[in-house]
Amino acid sequence: MTGQERSEEKSECVSLSPMREAVPAPPECERVCVFGTGDLGRSLGLRLLQAGYGVVFGSRRPHSSSSLIPHGSQVLGHAAAAQSGHLIFIAVQREHYDFLVPLANQLKGKVLVDLSNNLRKNQYPEANAEYLQSLVPGAEVVKGFNTLSAWSLQKGPSDANRQVYICGESVQAKQAVMAVATKLGFSALDRGFLSVARELEDFPLQLFPQWRLPLYIATGLSAAFFFYLLIRDIIYAYFTQGKDISFRIMVSLANKVCPIVSLIMLSLCYLPGVLASFLQLYRGTKYRRFPDWLDRWMLCRKQLGLLALGFAFLHVLYTLIIPIRYYVRFKATERTVSVIRENRTTEFDTTTAWSGDSYLSLGILGFSLYVLLGITSLPSVSNVLSWREFSFIQSKLGHLTLLLCTAHTYLYGWNKFLSSSTYKWCTPPGYMLCLVLPSVVLLLKLLLITPYTHTQNNTLSVMTALSSRHELLFLCYCTL
Amino acid sequence: MTGQERSEEKSECVSLSPMREAVPAPPECERVCVFGTGDLGRSLGLRLLQAGYGVVFGSRRPHSSSSLIPHGSQVLGHAAAAQSGHLIFIAVQREHYDFLVPLANQLKGKVLVDLSNNLRKNQYPEANAEYLQSLVPGAEVVKGFNTLSAWSLQKGPSDANRQVYICGESVQAKQAVMAVATKLGFSALDRGFLSVARELEDFPLQLFPQWRLPLYIATGLSAAFFFYLLIRDIIYAYFTQGKDISFRIMVSLANKVCPIVSLIMLSLCYLPGVLASFLQLYRGTKYRRFPDWLDRWMLCRKQLGLLALGFAFLHVLYTLIIPIRYYVRFKATERTVSVIRENRTTEFDTTTAWSGDSYLSLGILGFSLYVLLGITSLPSVSNVLSWREFSFIQSKLGHLTLLLCTAHTYLYGWNKFLSSSTYKWCTPPGYMLCLVLPSVVLLLKLLLITPYTHTQNNTLSVMTALSSRHELLFLCYCTL
Amino acid sequence: MTGQERSEEKSECVSLSPMREAVPAPPECERVCVFGTGDLGRSLGLRLLQAGYGVVFGSRRPHSSSSLIPHGSQVLGHAAAAQSGHLIFIAVQREHYDFLVPLANQLKGKVLVDLSNNLRKNQYPEANAEYLQSLVPGAEVVKGFNTLSAWSLQKGPSDANRQVYICGESVQAKQAVMAVATKLGFSALDRGFLSVARELEDFPLQLFPQWRLPLYIATGLSAAFFFYLLIRDIIYAYFTQGKDISFRIMVSLANKVCPIVSLIMLSLCYLPGVLASFLQLYRGTKYRRFPDWLDRWMLCRKQLGLLALGFAFLHVLYTLIIPIRYYVRFKATERTVSVIRENRTTEFDTTTAWSGDSYLSLGILGFSLYVLLGITSLPSVSNVLSWREFSFIQSKLGHLTLLLCTAHTYLYGWNKFLSSSTYKWCTPPGYMLCLVLPSVVLLLKLLLITPYTHTQNNTLSVMTALSSRHELLFLCYCTL
Repeated sequence: MTGQERSEEKSECVSLSPMREAVPAPPECERVCVFGTGDLGRSLGLRLLQAGYGVVFGSRRPHSSSSLIPHGSQVLGHAAAAQSGHLIFIAVQREHYDFLVPLANQLKGKVLVDLSNNLRKNQYPEANAEYLQSLVPGAEVVKGFNTLSAWSLQKGPSDANRQVYICGESVQAKQAVMAVATKLGFSALDRGFLSVARELEDFPLQLFPQWRLPLYIATGLSAAFFFYLLIRDIIYAYFTQGKDISFRIMVSLANKVCPIVSLIMLSLCYLPGVLASFLQLYRGTKYRRFPDWLDRWMLCRKQLGLLALGFAFLHVLYTLIIPIRYYVRFKATERTVSVIRENRTTEFDTTTAWSGDSYLSLGILGFSLYVLLGITSLPSVSNVLSWREFSFIQSKLGHLTLLLCTAHTYLYGWNKFLSSSTYKWCTPPGYMLCLVLPSVVLLLKLLLITPYTHTQNNTLSVMTALSSRHELLFLCYCTL
Repeated sequence: MTGQERSEEKSECVSLSPMREAVPAPPECERVCVFGTGDLGRSLGLRLLQAGYGVVFGSRRPHSSSSLIPHGSQVLGHAAAAQSGHLIFIAVQREHYDFLVPLANQLKGKVLVDLSNNLRKNQYPEANAEYLQSLVPGAEVVKGFNTLSAWSLQKGPSDANRQVYICGESVQAKQAVMAVATKLGFSALDRGFLSVARELEDFPLQLFPQWRLPLYIATGLSAAFFFYLLIRDIIYAYFTQGKDISFRIMVSLANKVCPIVSLIMLSLCYLPGVLASFLQLYRGTKYRRFPDWLDRWMLCRKQLGLLALGFAFLHVLYTLIIPIRYYVRFKATERTVSVIRENRTTEFDTTTAWSGDSYLSLGILGFSLYVLLGITSLPSVSNVLSWREFSFIQSKLGHLTLLLCTAHTYLYGWNKFLSSSTYKWCTPPGYMLCLVLPSVVLLLKLLLITPYTHTQNNTLSVMTALSSRHELLFLCYCTL
Repeated sequence: MTGQERSEEKSECVSLSPMREAVPAPPECERVCVFGTGDLGRSLGLRLLQAGYGVVFGSRRPHSSSSLIPHGSQVLGHAAAAQSGHLIFIAVQREHYDFLVPLANQLKGKVLVDLSNNLRKNQYPEANAEYLQSLVPGAEVVKGFNTLSAWSLQKGPSDANRQVYICGESVQAKQAVMAVATKLGFSALDRGFLSVARELEDFPLQLFPQWRLPLYIATGLSAAFFFYLLIRDIIYAYFTQGKDISFRIMVSLANKVCPIVSLIMLSLCYLPGVLASFLQLYRGTKYRRFPDWLDRWMLCRKQLGLLALGFAFLHVLYTLIIPIRYYVRFKATERTVSVIRENRTTEFDTTTAWSGDSYLSLGILGFSLYVLLGITSLPSVSNVLSWREFSFIQSKLGHLTLLLCTAHTYLYGWNKFLSSSTYKWCTPPGYMLCLVLPSVVLLLKLLLITPYTHTQNNTLSVMTALSSRHELLFLCYCTL
């Protein structure tokens, strides 16, 4: 074997070296095997062919499955196919895995890639990949590619999910699979041992797990305030004045519930950070874990904030269509008519103009910052930000947004806080209730940035001898 | 050769091993060669130097092109330069490729990377890379990097397009080029043999190929409805009442065309999925390809939906500025004045209030979901969604959006459907015309989710023995 | 050593081969060493373990730091730990680097990865990595991973920044570090020699460096126009008519400043491209560098444009809430009342309706294009565009946006340009001032696309013999 030959051979086999002992390599390309000729198997085979691999399909009836098989590949029986490659993709359903048992000898030492998925969580007692490993103990099972659809396998990863997760016991087997993934244009991430397989198999079945809690909170708050305001506004008017103003449910009531829920959720988004800071101050150290509930709360802050933005967006739309409403136009005409008929003079009130305009202006600025926060939480935008930039926007601008929106709500109340007619049936209006939480958050935050606590905080930082910049960043994240 | 020496050597030569036979390697870095000292060549050379390669430029006049050449590189004549590296980037225009013919001997076995582009499609009978290969048959031509600008080559891939496409006959040559691309920070994707080169060369010249059909549809629909409404609203008023209300073209007419086109395009976006489901039910199998027109239609659904969102956005803006318009303010004053002068009393109509407010509320909710659909179709957002999440949003929420927008339009018509005065010149108003298609889509979808068809669909799934989760995903994509 | 053994060994050692001579490798995984058991060190160790590495922590007190150390790793004294791996991550603060000096012998030939960051820029005379290299001259120092937080190290790169920058003197050492980064799921980019370390260390400390100049410009323009309009509108009214209309600051004034600043910044975004084109025409060549100020200006065009979009967004919101304002509703009532009381007849003016509606319509179309430009400048969207598509949108649609917005402003002025009452205290209104710059830009652009200049431009292109498509793209970028 000359040096020239050896080096050619080496560059050609991408960390799949053990294969060379098993099969004489074709002159140009490395061969991989795909068991199963369904949509998934065929799509995968096509993609492998395009990436320069030789593809051998393993099929129960190798002679009858010809028409749809990608051109350039070979179809053999399972046993024959198993011999032709070191790497075997198992693109059949878990229910049919038993056909592999009699092949145990041929599969010995091979890398089996389990691509299967289930139709629902906990369908089987153990993960498909672990089941496969138990059937063929001599092979090295790697779980992977299952998060991709046949579609994205066929079309390549250009606009679908690039990220592929794999797991398995053998480091070498995983490296072989990762090399193939890289050549197919995916970026593979090793998630650990085969025990992680269940998690990977559950991944395609998950439906917004991180959004669930925030969505429950949003739904609960909306329902609670909807009924509270329904009673206070519409049923109260019906009982005391006998007027049917139920049409107000559609716009007026919705436009009260939305800003209330938005403001509460925005403060729920910043409350855990403040709580964490105080906990650290109280404990005198930042190196103890937070309680679990606080941890979980902090992990769904992004979702809380985005839902709050959604409600704020609805509030803006509901507010902007006010002058188009029939009721509003009717009232305006009625007011003008009454001014004329009663021959009143109208007086312009500068204070009302000031407070009204300030209220609107604060709302506009608050909403603009809100949108800015939303844009920077888009994955592609937050990825180009340095950590300091991200925390500047999410912490400084976030608290500023909360401040502006709270001030906007206070100005809405304006001089109604002290008037007793505001408190129908002795209940405060919705916007007063929703001011409690943001006021508390802002007060606590104010306490944290006063000189005394600030010094304490700094002392804390200096005290901890190991605190590097990274740990500050970590802390920063925690107390965002 | 000691083990230490061998391992150093190995880690240094990244799958470019054949080079070692040709040239005594420099102690620290591998050398690559760049032919051409224009903007592109220099940018590429600079980037290669930064990535730790040794760079040798090949130039016609090696001694006169000194000042702009990146510091640290070498400039030689073509023949001498060709000898110094295994990999040669051809950064000259196709018109000057003939200078390579006399170098055939020096180029034998070398990897030539063709980076060229053309000024327009079909400028030459064959692809530049294929032409290059025909000129230097002894070399291994790889097409690649041509989708990058000199700018992004120089600045690195941090905020430009990371993806680089390559193609070529030799797997080893492609691997060598991919290794370089990876070290420069790009992620290279092997697209196949040299016959793909024309496609890669056409890529930088393409101008929204997937948007073309949806844009034609949008333009056609807009023009058709514009003229239809122009005749019905403005020309009709001129003929029958002699009034010139042409100023309404700018806002009123635009605000009728936009929502009509938006709603039709949204239903065009969901129609193919429904058709595909019925086709599968009719055929009794999901393993036959759809007809070509249906395939093409399904592939431009995203673009149809985004254009529909654009028109909906315009509709929202046009609606929100209504109360600012001179005409509207004039009418409001006139109405109030006539109430006073004719001493009429105004009566508040709760039904009108209910229908008007519901109409507005449905519009707001529909538009919010519309925006949500738009956000989730941003590449960075759809990438972090699991397939189930993506299909939940695009299918469930998508049909809900269509339902809300259709209901919004029906409520707009409200009690005008049966009034004969609505049908000027015996033509229905635009919003009635545009209701046909979404109503059909929603009815068909309703049929699909009724128990009987649902069972049929399920039977279909169970019947097909090979149906894995992936194939369901595939199906799911098809019938989104 | 049989072939089987050799190949196994090879696939297992990822370009870290020199390690094999130093330590007998564990049967399954490669060992790396982490000095420091703080948050950062522990997070990194955990991630390394998950990726299949063996991890040995080096600690001052190996026996007392047990509880928080990730399960599966080993804790040794520094000297012992240094012997167990070829790659050593230094996860301690720069202040404690001196403990490495006595270990010089054990660290000889090892790769030391400096992960440290500083609390502020220029905290120390030299970069931390250079300081480390001077302390341990026998080791090969590589700077890297410092842009990551402990958080994203622990959680993996799925939704944080994937990109990792490294630099160092030795190519082999950098390759070893890059291999680890790749296995951890990051994508590493080699930025050059150790002299770049300071730049990398400053990166996490930077706060929107590219946004600074555009933000200064926006703040300056806003302040200037605010005071100009304050004097012209509010103080003028107070002096000449004694009226206090200061409440107009909150909405009316803000709604004048926003569109003015937006339009000026949009034209500032397109001015440098036009200037560059004229400079190239004047020079007769496109191969000379632009002056520095023009270069810097061109590099912040994206930021200028996005800030302009922000101001336009505020302008839209401020405009849409106009009919809700107390002042506006008061005025409307007053107008109607005066019509009645003075028994005037109102006459509908078609010209006013035309100009008003056109003004609004142009504004809406301009803003929609503005938003489209904003969306396409999102990193994830611009990444999927080909260069021609990106330049089509940013150049063609960009200039169209500028044209629409300028026409919108001209129509706002309409017939007031020639009325002397517009010029209070002999000063022109703000919107006239802000029309100067966009008019100039549009005129210059018009000149550039007239046949004569166009031919000149083309001649320029043909003259330059080396101009490839890439260079045209480069030029295209410059003169966008």
